[in-house]
Amino acid sequence: MSEQRGRQSLCFSHPPCIVSSSSVVGKKEGEGPLSGRFDLVVEDDKFGSENWEEAESAFQKKAMEIAIEKAGVSPEDIRYLFAGDLLGQSVASSFALQPFGVPLFGLYGACSTSGLALSLAAMTVAAGYAYLAGAVTSSHFASAEKQFRFPLEYANQRPLSTTWTVTGSGAFLIAGQDFRKKDECPVRITGVTTGKIVDYGVRDSMNMGAAMAPAAKDVIEAHLEDFGRTADDYDRIITGDLGKVGREILIDLLKEKNIDISEKHMDCGIEIFDNEKQGTGSGGSGCGCSAVMLSAHFLPLLRSGKLRRILFVPTGALLSRISFNEGQNVPGIAHAVVIECCEESCSRRRTDRSGSPR
Amino acid sequence: MSEQRGRQSLCFSHPPCIVSSSSVVGKKEGEGPLSGRFDLVVEDDKFGSENWEEAESAFQKKAMEIAIEKAGVSPEDIRYLFAGDLLGQSVASSFALQPFGVPLFGLYGACSTSGLALSLAAMTVAAGYAYLAGAVTSSHFASAEKQFRFPLEYANQRPLSTTWTVTGSGAFLIAGQDFRKKDECPVRITGVTTGKIVDYGVRDSMNMGAAMAPAAKDVIEAHLEDFGRTADDYDRIITGDLGKVGREILIDLLKEKNIDISEKHMDCGIEIFDNEKQGTGSGGSGCGCSAVMLSAHFLPLLRSGKLRRILFVPTGALLSRISFNEGQNVPGIAHAVVIECCEESCSRRRTDRSGSPR
Repeated sequence: MSEQRGRQSLCFSHPPCIVSSSSVVGKKEGEGPLSGRFDLVVEDDKFGSENWEEAESAFQKKAMEIAIEKAGVSPEDIRYLFAGDLLGQSVASSFALQPFGVPLFGLYGACSTSGLALSLAAMTVAAGYAYLAGAVTSSHFASAEKQFRFPLEYANQRPLSTTWTVTGSGAFLIAGQDFRKKDECPVRITGVTTGKIVDYGVRDSMNMGAAMAPAAKDVIEAHLEDFGRTADDYDRIITGDLGKVGREILIDLLKEKNIDISEKHMDCGIEIFDNEKQGTGSGGSGCGCSAVMLSAHFLPLLRSGKLRRILFVPTGALLSRISFNEGQNVPGIAHAVVIECCEESCSRRRTDRSGSPR
Repeated sequence: MSEQRGRQSLCFSHPPCIVSSSSVVGKKEGEGPLSGRFDLVVEDDKFGSENWEEAESAFQKKAMEIAIEKAGVSPEDIRYLFAGDLLGQSVASSFALQPFGVPLFGLYGACSTSGLALSLAAMTVAAGYAYLAGAVTSSHFASAEKQFRFPLEYANQRPLSTTWTVTGSGAFLIAGQDFRKKDECPVRITGVTTGKIVDYGVRDSMNMGAAMAPAAKDVIEAHLEDFGRTADDYDRIITGDLGKVGREILIDLLKEKNIDISEKHMDCGIEIFDNEKQGTGSGGSGCGCSAVMLSAHFLPLLRSGKLRRILFVPTGALLSRISFNEGQNVPGIAHAVVIECCEESCSRRRTDRSGSPR
């Protein structure tokens, strides 16, 4: 049986595997530092659609198709989908996922949704509720600006603390340990720590990093306590989209708790763009940002053994245009997922096959 | 271990219990046929808040507080919360639940969210991931009209097919089987069937019943097949908010599949208002509708043994104002939850105590 750890964590005794993943991004993302690593770069930000919202659905649908194709399965093999996006009433997901005909758990955790989806998919597989489950999230620069701030046509100025919503979608297929695709060695989700809503009173919709950093601090601190680990137990602690401003705050807040992650920390939003050259302010953001970075950058490093264990911490800012206009705060939430390379189980497998260890 | 049933269902071998629940509603709901059964009727639809969105949060917060108090627990005893509402970016839940400090899984399934939340809370408890989990949803007539249709100040006319969003919130605490509160006999969630997105091409935002009925048909049909049951195995099959128009469509669609639920079917939206007298059109609707009806009406009937087994099927219409204005369809989704009275375990318990069966 999987085990409850501490106040808000789970450790899986039979850790599910990420058996395939995909990343579909827009032109700007394809021109960034990770150029060449995404599965698909779509030059047309409208992806052949009539509007930005339909385009975001098209990105998400394509990401699902690629993940399914890579795993060598068909949509009917997927028992449950866990999905969400940033648009009101999660419409990007609703229209993207209908064609697959898979029972759907709709999620909303702002930009932390990829952590939420991976957590629930892993919990569902580890509990024996599904053999194969999917987790997919998306965001789109233009649909998000329209949803949360101003129509792009206003061409309003952006302060340096602003983040730039990533146009893209990442999809993941999670399966039980006995799922094996050829010789490829999947990585495992070995634990999760589910975050609480944390409200430090930030009211600036142009500074999401500051709104989310306290939630990231809260879940990282809880995770390390629940698992009895330190930052040294991880090769990387990777937040979703704090950007440069949020990163500084996170590191400072954790130092106050005598936790130093400065050497281990990376932020998907800082990595995905060359923020100075590309004019993306504090960094990338959005439901798609952490998802495509996990698929295109971190999972390959785990599969090749260059990373052994990461703490993946997508971060979300809980606001809507209405709550913001009504003068409400912007609380944050973050969910942590432990992802490890499965070298041990692989070497066992190879021994079984060849009669000698690798 | 809990068991996968068919393509999209789970049957819990150790069914979790609904150990407490609550219903907080607005003035109009309190004047309807269920007058006197809700835990709290709030005469002021703004609940002392400055705007409708904050009011909805206040309803949800109050519902949580009452459920917690009834169960005789404290917020720290709740390991996970599963919650959602109808507002963009689920802000009603974000602001309602922050004070409880409980790890949160944010959900979105339109008006089906109460089924989604109950399903995931039950799955989480049955898997041993939590001893106590909460499920809470809310809706508010004024915030929903503003979110999906027109500001109330426009006083626009409503066709008869329109439903009336319920102002209210229902909260549920789900625990493992060994949770016992005094002599009260909890009811159990014995199975779930998770729905798919179903799109019949409906484009009328004033006729949500027609948009959701095909999804209700789909999940009820799948449920009966997965469990090898017929409608006769249930005392009631209870949809969320199809209203009078959606009910007719659901019954007709199932008849085409040789499934007759006409004698067993009830709809929370039809029951909560005296729709002719109260001018609520086809019926009540919203995330809060099915939740408060389950808590105030159906759970007491199950606890007293007047109902033995119900299939609770909250129904959701997947649209946003933007998707609607862009001419998209309104697909539907519905999630089914099997809820049973635990007479068997109760009579065992009473036998243990008194030495003779009841």
